[in-house]
Amino acid sequence: MNMKHLNPDRLFPIDKKTRSIARYLYSLIKDAPIISPHGHTDPSWFSKNIAFSDPVSLLITPDHYILRMLYSQGIKMESLGVNNQNESSELDKRKIWKLFAKYFYLFRGTPSQLWMKHVFYDIFKLKKEFNEEHADYFFDKISLLLNTKEYLPRSLFEKFNIDILATTDAATDSLKFHQEIKTSWGKRVIPTYRPDSVSDPEHEDFYKELELLGTLTKEDTFTWSGYLKAHRIRREFFKKMGASATDHGPPNPRTLQLSPNAAHQLFHKILEKNFTREEADHFRAHMLWQFAAMSYDDGLVMQLHAGSYRNHNLQLFKRFGRDKGADIPKQMEYTENLKPLLDAFGNEDKLQLILFTLDESVYSRELATLAGHYPCLKLGPAWWFHDSPEGMLRHRRHTMETAGFYNVTGFVDDTRAFFSIPARHDMARRIDARLLAELVTEHRMSEEEATDTIIDITTTHAKACFRL
Amino acid sequence: MNMKHLNPDRLFPIDKKTRSIARYLYSLIKDAPIISPHGHTDPSWFSKNIAFSDPVSLLITPDHYILRMLYSQGIKMESLGVNNQNESSELDKRKIWKLFAKYFYLFRGTPSQLWMKHVFYDIFKLKKEFNEEHADYFFDKISLLLNTKEYLPRSLFEKFNIDILATTDAATDSLKFHQEIKTSWGKRVIPTYRPDSVSDPEHEDFYKELELLGTLTKEDTFTWSGYLKAHRIRREFFKKMGASATDHGPPNPRTLQLSPNAAHQLFHKILEKNFTREEADHFRAHMLWQFAAMSYDDGLVMQLHAGSYRNHNLQLFKRFGRDKGADIPKQMEYTENLKPLLDAFGNEDKLQLILFTLDESVYSRELATLAGHYPCLKLGPAWWFHDSPEGMLRHRRHTMETAGFYNVTGFVDDTRAFFSIPARHDMARRIDARLLAELVTEHRMSEEEATDTIIDITTTHAKACFRL
Amino acid sequence: MNMKHLNPDRLFPIDKKTRSIARYLYSLIKDAPIISPHGHTDPSWFSKNIAFSDPVSLLITPDHYILRMLYSQGIKMESLGVNNQNESSELDKRKIWKLFAKYFYLFRGTPSQLWMKHVFYDIFKLKKEFNEEHADYFFDKISLLLNTKEYLPRSLFEKFNIDILATTDAATDSLKFHQEIKTSWGKRVIPTYRPDSVSDPEHEDFYKELELLGTLTKEDTFTWSGYLKAHRIRREFFKKMGASATDHGPPNPRTLQLSPNAAHQLFHKILEKNFTREEADHFRAHMLWQFAAMSYDDGLVMQLHAGSYRNHNLQLFKRFGRDKGADIPKQMEYTENLKPLLDAFGNEDKLQLILFTLDESVYSRELATLAGHYPCLKLGPAWWFHDSPEGMLRHRRHTMETAGFYNVTGFVDDTRAFFSIPARHDMARRIDARLLAELVTEHRMSEEEATDTIIDITTTHAKACFRL
Repeated sequence: MNMKHLNPDRLFPIDKKTRSIARYLYSLIKDAPIISPHGHTDPSWFSKNIAFSDPVSLLITPDHYILRMLYSQGIKMESLGVNNQNESSELDKRKIWKLFAKYFYLFRGTPSQLWMKHVFYDIFKLKKEFNEEHADYFFDKISLLLNTKEYLPRSLFEKFNIDILATTDAATDSLKFHQEIKTSWGKRVIPTYRPDSVSDPEHEDFYKELELLGTLTKEDTFTWSGYLKAHRIRREFFKKMGASATDHGPPNPRTLQLSPNAAHQLFHKILEKNFTREEADHFRAHMLWQFAAMSYDDGLVMQLHAGSYRNHNLQLFKRFGRDKGADIPKQMEYTENLKPLLDAFGNEDKLQLILFTLDESVYSRELATLAGHYPCLKLGPAWWFHDSPEGMLRHRRHTMETAGFYNVTGFVDDTRAFFSIPARHDMARRIDARLLAELVTEHRMSEEEATDTIIDITTTHAKACFRL
Repeated sequence: MNMKHLNPDRLFPIDKKTRSIARYLYSLIKDAPIISPHGHTDPSWFSKNIAFSDPVSLLITPDHYILRMLYSQGIKMESLGVNNQNESSELDKRKIWKLFAKYFYLFRGTPSQLWMKHVFYDIFKLKKEFNEEHADYFFDKISLLLNTKEYLPRSLFEKFNIDILATTDAATDSLKFHQEIKTSWGKRVIPTYRPDSVSDPEHEDFYKELELLGTLTKEDTFTWSGYLKAHRIRREFFKKMGASATDHGPPNPRTLQLSPNAAHQLFHKILEKNFTREEADHFRAHMLWQFAAMSYDDGLVMQLHAGSYRNHNLQLFKRFGRDKGADIPKQMEYTENLKPLLDAFGNEDKLQLILFTLDESVYSRELATLAGHYPCLKLGPAWWFHDSPEGMLRHRRHTMETAGFYNVTGFVDDTRAFFSIPARHDMARRIDARLLAELVTEHRMSEEEATDTIIDITTTHAKACFRL
Repeated sequence: MNMKHLNPDRLFPIDKKTRSIARYLYSLIKDAPIISPHGHTDPSWFSKNIAFSDPVSLLITPDHYILRMLYSQGIKMESLGVNNQNESSELDKRKIWKLFAKYFYLFRGTPSQLWMKHVFYDIFKLKKEFNEEHADYFFDKISLLLNTKEYLPRSLFEKFNIDILATTDAATDSLKFHQEIKTSWGKRVIPTYRPDSVSDPEHEDFYKELELLGTLTKEDTFTWSGYLKAHRIRREFFKKMGASATDHGPPNPRTLQLSPNAAHQLFHKILEKNFTREEADHFRAHMLWQFAAMSYDDGLVMQLHAGSYRNHNLQLFKRFGRDKGADIPKQMEYTENLKPLLDAFGNEDKLQLILFTLDESVYSRELATLAGHYPCLKLGPAWWFHDSPEGMLRHRRHTMETAGFYNVTGFVDDTRAFFSIPARHDMARRIDARLLAELVTEHRMSEEEATDTIIDITTTHAKACFRL
């Protein structure tokens, strides 16, 4: 590996003394197994263990960070080979790869560039600089390596030293790939219960999913009690398959307690497709409250990823579908919105609720203060657009003084880009080492305390927050 | 004092040259008398001058920062000996102290830890590291010292080199302790007029307090004119007792001008307990306007501490009462909300209005721009959760470029934790020295200018902002 | 030039190695011609080329940053000689200058002080420290120099190495000064189409301007179709006079698509002066949509400067008029507000829309994510109150990780203070050099990449974003 391309001191503090403390702290945890309690990898990779097809399908087309940046500079989705049934899309993978290489300079200053360099120089051990001139070299080398045994999904899982990898799965998923992994391999690739499509009346598949949920659980999901019971049954199934958590991605973090009667009536308005946008919001808000009640009972950790305006670009959505880099965050409010849930379950540590946000203005104002008080709450790490060096530093600096280090979970990569997982965890570990080293040099923490902290938050604490 | 525990360079910049400038700037003001124009110490400590009872009642149970952090990690209020009439609460102070020592690691990265270390190593001159193992040593030593003459309230007041200490007092307070201090001791422990309970119709004691206000002033406080006059009479009394300021802590900074007739009608709806939440908000908003009018006339500096959702945790409030660490900030708006007040009084420096916020997103957007224009406005320092190294740095960096240093007041500790006062002022002084040293090294300010600035903002300017 | 007054390393990083990289990066672009695509200089200066009258009229009275700071500290507009027809205003320029010198310390930590020092020590080459004692020296020297040929507007334009200077001009402006410059001088002083007064029904001159627009275009601007056509005609005229852009300064960035019929009806309510505040907002929102449609057709770059509460201080506005430092930002929302415009034109790079904000909380949440996806969008640089060292660093750190460097335009000075233009561009260049040097030292970017980036964003990219 070329130090020029992947300097061992990258992301560390500039000051020599602080840098040496950062190096030391990092050395303690750089080889710790990866705990990945929330992500979007495909479990079939690990059950089938088939070679990844090519550099483009692996590294470009599924990466919404890369699509969005290229698209913002006028490069069409078609030129990137993004699936499009009605129009001619580029089929020549090498041509797409070269286009990416040509525009790689756009990613300067972004975490995508640092992740990609990690993939090139650390995982594929390539020697040249990635640019248009060397695009063929990269394409050929990676294509070749992907077909070796060393680069099969299971080999990489082991090479990456992954201890636990959680996927995110629809409430109605059969989990057959997880079953196969369990039977044939035994590594911990665990599912997460994500019931959005069957709890959001405005989701395009809501009614279809509701029916499927009924079929799977043999409950009448077109009654309020049957619907709730069906959720509990599926959650038990997910637990049996290894799940330790649920995940919820509503447009906002509103929660709402309703009397059983009011909830019943609202559910039936939803079923009759006779509801306002406000009523859909009420229903989602009440379902968050119900999911908290279920977590309180069954112990599944509840994750709340709120605040994204999904598929903001209507034309793009119509032509190319979801997850093409057109989700845009909105401002969020937590102090009032979470109160109904917290009034009911906030004082019990039977519930573990983990909050993620795309709105950094709430870090110090609402989330650190809430997580620094309520026993049921933890704050997730810097998320999505903020899963970056500056983003992670802001997250710590805005939250540690009120919530400390122990009301914040360990790192969460939240990615479908399997090859970027080591890069992302490495970045988070480097940034924590850097931040703690600065606290040590400024005499705000002793070196012993920093040592203890970085080990905890990377290992035991990271597991405990997700009840792993 | 062990340098390991309380390094003389703590919080200073890492770079050598900058650090030496910071040391120099700090040396100029480290021994300056403490000006504490806003806080919550108990005046009876200084009138009675009785020894503090024990380490737990002094340092743990009254500190909402400590309660909230321990509670967030599942430690019950009962285990901390927090007063609770209906349930068995831990009575063994030593046991509580040990629990605190055991969980002291939770405070890593928080200002509470730095303040506590200052108390242990600078005020009590203890030699060991504070941890579970040494908990008894700390408990015994502190218990012993608290019963010596040196650690009586008045001795400490002098040892801490406090010039002025303002308390916060209900509008209906007799101020008898202040009177006794004045008579028997002569140090400046001055009251602050805080009329929240008698100007917020939603306060649980509003009607009782209204009656008491009438009794004290011999005005009919159940008429609008009598009510306003009663406030003016009490303010005069507070001024006579040394007060230089009032303080207001509404849920939001809304201000509202009303015609005398409309105000009269609203007041009578309030008296008849026949009002909506919006009308309560109107009343508070108009009372801010009225208090500004009174300050305009009588010269009392007006402080506005808005934006906290008090007692957010309903169950905790019911069982343990106020101030247990469950106040959560909300987003605030100042540009529109302050306009009615500013339209009436904004162009006159007869009014001095000092703004505090828990919503850091308004620092650069609204508060620095308002304070950098209106003659009546000053911006308070980083407040409450933001009274911390990172919080204070953000505050300066977000405000100094628009409001400069002279539209921001000096430091305000806002604390009931008497022993932490030297620690807090010291932290603020160190952070100012650090920030100014960085400006000097980056050639954004000359050393002469930095010298002049740090002396001003710690001494003369700090006094002038509060008309002391 | 005295290094004490204007250190060549000012604003660079403190660390030696990083500083030397910053020096190198800065050296590459410090002498690059100034591209000023948005500002408020007076074109008559360059057409007439008459000497500036005196230091006060040049540097104090037209500078709203200076007026607001002095006013905030109780200095009256009258004492500063600000025009006031009804009252006696200070006429003695020297006296005003001395007052400014006396209070110059208020500007410590603000960009105004750094800009002013640049003017004193780099443009006027003065040797003493600016303070009350030397005020006369500065006044005399500057007065003298202003009357030399070297300090005439055109000489300075060339000395400042300005390549392109855009002014901002009412839709109804005759552009006769631009015509004269074109004919007699040939330097690129280009107009910008700013139709606020003729598209905001709440503007005090709206109806008068509407009539004038009709006269100039020979269209019936009291019909909806004539009104729209008149805008297109004027835009063509501006283009012929060299304009490459339009500028829009509404109170918020709301956009709205209306059917032709609904738009027609709304326009006629406006004409009849029979509209609500909400309808005025609708009209402005729809006009932003229409202006985007026009830009889509004629290729003029559209600039959106939203979010300022203009003339917040009512009394001051009544007595002294606009632009006296009393504009206060408000919180803004972009994700929902821009959607109607983006739904119609967002996927086409025929439209170039540049967003500016005074609300820093939207940098990472909304603007970097929008600009990092939509082909039509670019994010402008740190604006107005945030055009400062800390402000520019925050802007880059909050946006580069999501939008990179190429979805952000080059620097924009947005100033009427002609003499400060070199200072402002120099500050922006230094801050970019500093930031990029830090990325290099932290191995987040190679030195080659940083070199390439700083040259691009200062030269070719800066021009391309404004289609210059």
